[in-house]
Amino acid sequence: MSAGDEELFLYENIARTIEDSIANGTLKVGDKLDSVRMLSQKMDVSMSTVYNAYYELEGKGLIESRPRSGYYVRFVPDKELSAPSFTDHKVDVTEITNREFIDEVIQQPVTEEYLELSTAVPAPELLPLKKIKRSIQAAYRSDPTNGIRYEHHRGNPGLRRLISKLALSWERTFHEDDIVITAGCMEALSVSLRAVTKPGDTVVIESPTYYGIFQLLASMDLNVLEIPARPGAGISPERLEEALQQNQVQAVVLIPSFNNPLGSCIPDEAKRQIVEIITKHQVPLIEDDIYGEMFYGEHRPNTCKTYDKEGWVIYCSSFSKTLAPGFRIGWCIPGRFNKEVYYQKYINSLASPTLTQRAMAHFLEKGRYDLHLKRLRKELHIQCLKYSQAIKEYFPEGTRISQPKGGFVLWIELSERINAIELYRAAFEEKISIAPGQIFSTGDQFQNYIRISFGRPYSGKTDQGLKKLGDIIENQ
Amino acid sequence: MSAGDEELFLYENIARTIEDSIANGTLKVGDKLDSVRMLSQKMDVSMSTVYNAYYELEGKGLIESRPRSGYYVRFVPDKELSAPSFTDHKVDVTEITNREFIDEVIQQPVTEEYLELSTAVPAPELLPLKKIKRSIQAAYRSDPTNGIRYEHHRGNPGLRRLISKLALSWERTFHEDDIVITAGCMEALSVSLRAVTKPGDTVVIESPTYYGIFQLLASMDLNVLEIPARPGAGISPERLEEALQQNQVQAVVLIPSFNNPLGSCIPDEAKRQIVEIITKHQVPLIEDDIYGEMFYGEHRPNTCKTYDKEGWVIYCSSFSKTLAPGFRIGWCIPGRFNKEVYYQKYINSLASPTLTQRAMAHFLEKGRYDLHLKRLRKELHIQCLKYSQAIKEYFPEGTRISQPKGGFVLWIELSERINAIELYRAAFEEKISIAPGQIFSTGDQFQNYIRISFGRPYSGKTDQGLKKLGDIIENQ
Repeated sequence: MSAGDEELFLYENIARTIEDSIANGTLKVGDKLDSVRMLSQKMDVSMSTVYNAYYELEGKGLIESRPRSGYYVRFVPDKELSAPSFTDHKVDVTEITNREFIDEVIQQPVTEEYLELSTAVPAPELLPLKKIKRSIQAAYRSDPTNGIRYEHHRGNPGLRRLISKLALSWERTFHEDDIVITAGCMEALSVSLRAVTKPGDTVVIESPTYYGIFQLLASMDLNVLEIPARPGAGISPERLEEALQQNQVQAVVLIPSFNNPLGSCIPDEAKRQIVEIITKHQVPLIEDDIYGEMFYGEHRPNTCKTYDKEGWVIYCSSFSKTLAPGFRIGWCIPGRFNKEVYYQKYINSLASPTLTQRAMAHFLEKGRYDLHLKRLRKELHIQCLKYSQAIKEYFPEGTRISQPKGGFVLWIELSERINAIELYRAAFEEKISIAPGQIFSTGDQFQNYIRISFGRPYSGKTDQGLKKLGDIIENQ
Repeated sequence: MSAGDEELFLYENIARTIEDSIANGTLKVGDKLDSVRMLSQKMDVSMSTVYNAYYELEGKGLIESRPRSGYYVRFVPDKELSAPSFTDHKVDVTEITNREFIDEVIQQPVTEEYLELSTAVPAPELLPLKKIKRSIQAAYRSDPTNGIRYEHHRGNPGLRRLISKLALSWERTFHEDDIVITAGCMEALSVSLRAVTKPGDTVVIESPTYYGIFQLLASMDLNVLEIPARPGAGISPERLEEALQQNQVQAVVLIPSFNNPLGSCIPDEAKRQIVEIITKHQVPLIEDDIYGEMFYGEHRPNTCKTYDKEGWVIYCSSFSKTLAPGFRIGWCIPGRFNKEVYYQKYINSLASPTLTQRAMAHFLEKGRYDLHLKRLRKELHIQCLKYSQAIKEYFPEGTRISQPKGGFVLWIELSERINAIELYRAAFEEKISIAPGQIFSTGDQFQNYIRISFGRPYSGKTDQGLKKLGDIIENQ
């Protein structure tokens, strides 16, 4: 361990101890913290270590510095706003009926002048642009034909080897030929669905679910069976078992970790049970793990694929949410459907571009991805807390909000009087772009919900926009 | 006109005059040409201009220099080998039955040690690598976020504007919003088919047809109706009319210019009639124009889209055969299906990569594409003649061969005793990769045909390989 690492370790430890004290109530809002000098003596660390710890807590909005006075506890997370409510309800197979709302929302052009709160992507400011540029340079310099030749249809072999190593953090190992590179997670999902379903089939999804999944299923003439997901823990294995027993289902599509829009994370043990159930029923589970690396806690959650012994889980992910949306690089680990998924990718688009795959392989090979993820998670967590805090301040009494432990989005329940589509339209007129609840389900249970992305750093514009949004809600 | 251009103009004119004299029989095999000095005096041009003309003709294999003697006519194209035969036959709607052969051929790994004659792509030696590299550099330098952001879902607007100008050479103009950028022509075809068909539908194709189209149609559970194509002129409008009258057809897929594998080009007037017919029947025509720019004559053939007044033609093309296969950039001009095709692209893969699109736009903007195409056409024409000449020399008596006026491939009819799949296997053992006729049709009429690509410059290895291939055929 280098001196730099030790320093990092120390200040993070101190910050976490204080954060825990706030969370468990030992420190209360308004309490004054030890001065920097005092704490450095108490803990036998340098003053700069204590400053770093306080900066971090300040960044998260947990403490505030008052001029000529010191640091005070500012915000108690998880205590002041309730999570969205959960009402279980009977589920039925249904056609996809919310296409119209989705089309309205995705087709509106959101220009630079808008406050963009509707897209779940990281802002460029959070991404390592210079290092990516170096990887692009390395990619074409190392390729005598500058990326003009077709890449291996299954994907660049070096990149597949490096991607296979990412699975170590969720306790699995794979061979490079277990992996198929795709054009982002969207193509990963679409080739997976094509590999295991045909028109008219029924697919189990969570409710609410990412609208892109509805678009994909609708375009393939698939029907859905929506299982209500609990705000914290996602769908329960029991409800899935019930659904598979009572219905002819050809596939299950889940975002088990940091679900979009709910932010929920199915606990590891429940993931294990879910895999047991789909294996018993021999129904493929398409696992969208695009947010899995974006955890705020100490450990990465496992995936369903972690527990997949017989190959019924088709794992899908991409670098679009963590590193480079515009590179369009995703991947599948299709298990027993390896041949079918590979074939669907091949006939869908032959191969993925050569240059961007080589650049990504270079970036991963240099160990830059881990380092970047570590920073990105911290930034996102801070942004999550800041956005949450603002919503608490500016939105009407009774607003309920998710407390995601990872990902990019907040799921917000408003008064039952509010129609989210109308709110969306009113906000859009004021150049604020949000995602209305209607696009996340075929049912009507989310018509007073909105999703807000905190992928962009909190700025003055964000603050004014959220305040204005609060006013619009108040006046509806 | 600069001095350089004038020079180019002069030697090309002289070369063409001599070529015409060979073609019309004025000059015969073995005839001695004027000496360089004599011709330069006769035509009042510099000796270097005459040398350039002779070099060009020599490169095409039309004349040969004999040491201390001069130049002699060597080869009379179009006269010594017959074109493949054509037998018209009744056509029926059929399921796709040749998937097994196609899978066998495309799944064999062809490594560097093989003589690769089975893929219709230009060799890297024919492509402007340095200029492409400069365009990649320009692309990330001009983008403050280095290509990491999502591109416009429809495709980079600048690139779309530049692509719209390419249509000027086939007498049309389009707006940038008439165009959808795709992952190569393969995604262009697949999103077009998804936009206008559903499983169980019937699609009219040419016979023979590129095997990738069978794979695509089979994966969508579409049936085919194969119309026999004439070696020179492709399918006749009358046969198409008949097919649309007698069958319930949901789409037509054609490669009208320099068809793969036939090399045929439907005459402009027949293209006009075909568009009239599909418009009358209100059946969309998906036009794959991927080889359209690769003409060897003086003029680019028109496209079906040229004559499309009511938007029933979905035009598809890409840069994969002309500039950069590994960039995976293609496009659609979907006419009245603009919205549907755009939507299919969006749900299929969201957007295409940012960086490669910007690089391509830079390359086109600099006017480098036209210049490159001009050179590539000439090189390909020379390669076409050299490969044809070798096949004539090395293959058994009775071999018939296409005389393509553009594109990358030769379509070769062998003795009826030959089974092309067996020949393919025997050649593969000898590390020669060819494409057997069976993969280009569901019927059995091409089982003694093979397709040979001349995308790679003719080398000693090519020569030995074609000689060996001739021996294998002889011994079968």
